[in-house]
Amino acid sequence: MGNQADLSALAPRAALDDAALDQLFRTARTYNVFRDDAISDETIHQLYELLKWGPTAFNAQPARYVFVRSPEAKAKLGPALSAGNRDKTLAAPLTVIVAVDTHFHEHLPTQFPSYDARPLFENTPALIEPTIQRNGSLQGAYLILAARALGLDAGPMSGFNADLLNQAFFPDGRWKANFLVNLGYGTNEKLFPRNPRLGFDEVARIE
Amino acid sequence: MGNQADLSALAPRAALDDAALDQLFRTARTYNVFRDDAISDETIHQLYELLKWGPTAFNAQPARYVFVRSPEAKAKLGPALSAGNRDKTLAAPLTVIVAVDTHFHEHLPTQFPSYDARPLFENTPALIEPTIQRNGSLQGAYLILAARALGLDAGPMSGFNADLLNQAFFPDGRWKANFLVNLGYGTNEKLFPRNPRLGFDEVARIE
Repeated sequence: MGNQADLSALAPRAALDDAALDQLFRTARTYNVFRDDAISDETIHQLYELLKWGPTAFNAQPARYVFVRSPEAKAKLGPALSAGNRDKTLAAPLTVIVAVDTHFHEHLPTQFPSYDARPLFENTPALIEPTIQRNGSLQGAYLILAARALGLDAGPMSGFNADLLNQAFFPDGRWKANFLVNLGYGTNEKLFPRNPRLGFDEVARIE
Repeated sequence: MGNQADLSALAPRAALDDAALDQLFRTARTYNVFRDDAISDETIHQLYELLKWGPTAFNAQPARYVFVRSPEAKAKLGPALSAGNRDKTLAAPLTVIVAVDTHFHEHLPTQFPSYDARPLFENTPALIEPTIQRNGSLQGAYLILAARALGLDAGPMSGFNADLLNQAFFPDGRWKANFLVNLGYGTNEKLFPRNPRLGFDEVARIE
């Protein structure tokens, strides 16, 4: 650290090019209909190998992922879906249940070796829920953006019956669903006009 | 929709190149020390103009952002910071308070014109908290990745006294802090060895 070779590597990085910014943010859309192309195990692993690097508090990584792809697993998911999300989700080549591990802190000794944060959560269980809510959702966003970075399209949604889903997929109660993301290669079908966004002055200030 | 011209535009996009995937995920780090370079209003607006496109439920966009840059604003933030985060945060060129608007639903009629979701939240206030937790955190992750896409480095943290921060910055109680992100151009100083990540089989399954 601190030698010439390191310093030369520290010039600020450039912004990604416009095509990349478009793909990640500016022209990316929430898709409702996808091409039939199957999503391979290899692509699913590539997705995880990217998103896993996103930061979480204490490197706790509380999110968990069920990649629902087979007809049997889709049938298990169906009853938990809200009416407006059911058909499109059953038709999507892949649906990710972004869940959380309510016992994520068991992994802290190996994942955050510089400080043993496990007792913090064992002794103060009230810290668990906000930690999994915040960091599990951060990781869900990393998944959406990692998918787009890999050329996939995403259709995230939170309209489902969590109790039914949890009973069907997580009967032991340790994992709990946070939200769902359909993944595939989107088509223009049922792609609604893009909604507006709030202006900077409505949501932000510089102090 | 559905004509030949549309279909030709629907060939799957390619993955971003390795340098972009590195910058966003694989070699990105949580930085503790930043170069002195000031972050301009222009860069702050560029950041918002990217992150704003990330998806949220009902396009609700509940996150709010205070860009803490002046010595006066940093001094206001200082007492709320945990001891381990204080010095590095006061030294960072910019600190973002990623907050939520507890009355986000007032904007739904303009932001989600296809369906008036405002009464849903007015009539069922218990839906507000999970919606702002989940979607406000998604937007916080969009901010981190948009910053990296622009060549900035991020140092997110949740170690602060929320009551003190909210009193200092949001005395009317409408906005509430979720987490903080230092932004700038990171240096290797106090850049700790990278922590491991959980393996695919520990956190995911394909059904």
